[in-house]
Amino acid sequence: MFKLHNFFRSSTSTRLRVALNFKGLSYDYVSYVLRRGDNRTEAYLQMNPAGLVPVLERKDGTSMTQSLAIIEWLDEEYPRPALLPRDADGRARVRALAYMVACEIHPLNNLRVLGYLADSLGADEDFQRKWFIHWVSETFDVLEATLARDEDTGDFCHGSEPSLADVCLYAQVWNNKRFDIDLSSWPTITRIFNALDAIPAFHSAAPPFQPDAS
Amino acid sequence: MFKLHNFFRSSTSTRLRVALNFKGLSYDYVSYVLRRGDNRTEAYLQMNPAGLVPVLERKDGTSMTQSLAIIEWLDEEYPRPALLPRDADGRARVRALAYMVACEIHPLNNLRVLGYLADSLGADEDFQRKWFIHWVSETFDVLEATLARDEDTGDFCHGSEPSLADVCLYAQVWNNKRFDIDLSSWPTITRIFNALDAIPAFHSAAPPFQPDAS
Repeated sequence: MFKLHNFFRSSTSTRLRVALNFKGLSYDYVSYVLRRGDNRTEAYLQMNPAGLVPVLERKDGTSMTQSLAIIEWLDEEYPRPALLPRDADGRARVRALAYMVACEIHPLNNLRVLGYLADSLGADEDFQRKWFIHWVSETFDVLEATLARDEDTGDFCHGSEPSLADVCLYAQVWNNKRFDIDLSSWPTITRIFNALDAIPAFHSAAPPFQPDAS
Repeated sequence: MFKLHNFFRSSTSTRLRVALNFKGLSYDYVSYVLRRGDNRTEAYLQMNPAGLVPVLERKDGTSMTQSLAIIEWLDEEYPRPALLPRDADGRARVRALAYMVACEIHPLNNLRVLGYLADSLGADEDFQRKWFIHWVSETFDVLEATLARDEDTGDFCHGSEPSLADVCLYAQVWNNKRFDIDLSSWPTITRIFNALDAIPAFHSAAPPFQPDAS
């Protein structure tokens, strides 16, 4: 049994909930309200010195950080159903699609960056919204073109089974809802999101259905 | 024989040069001067619609993007010397350390973000420097504490062999030199950087020793 230290709205937490659900692994849900500083207590910083969510605590009391590292670990330890293809080229493609979201959108748009823009530059809500949409659009335009062009794209980002790329895409589209971003210019992303949202393991991991949702 | 489409100062390009050198794989060096827009030509966008460097072109003419996805692929296809440990827990730790740099520092500090800060907010050189140092320091403080605390840290980030985490750390420390960031408050990072810099595969991949260095 795992303990998932997380927050309903955190996009990296959503990724991890999806992966755990998808693999049929149960977990205790431990909620941290970031704006209240739940993640800055001494006990939490002991577990993750970065003060970020999510953390996955294992049965033996050890903790893991960084959502993508944890998902790779889950995929190695609990290989079925898989979140990475069997062939090396497929894995490279899935990881590249996942990192487009994880290294080019999410790091720019999380709460601490929006907070730093406000504190250091006096960026108001309007600018934060513009900033958020700018970085989503830059990469979603490329992701859309890539998915629409590649023969390897199927019902999901890579063929007919959900993968790590879908986990990241799904969490990011939910994150976009914070700023009501219109998805209509990205039809392939929209189609894949809708296909994922029809899968109970994904749907039940979405932010609004978590115990701490507000 | 590979073709590496890259730029001497790009941190993700440095990662890939290190990985290729470390595995003894030779490559043609193709330079793209980003400020000149070499990466926005139609031919380049065909290869990588994101217009980012690096791209690894393979003998069969196919191209790969996203430095970390490419390095995982290289490690699968050319397993010795390895860049990931043999045990799943070790791999999870190495990936988590690598993603601290790759998902929390680099995405915030690359050229297009600094450019957007300047264009959209009129951020001057002083603010860009402050921004850059802020995000390096936030994560290097945590990385330092983690490396200093963990028993798994050795001569390098994980034990006595260089890994993916070292590849990311090495490239980031070189990136820091753009803003002359003083490393003295991070003694473990400094020690590991110096150990890496003594390895020819790492040293020869550093920005100043590339054919397009200026």
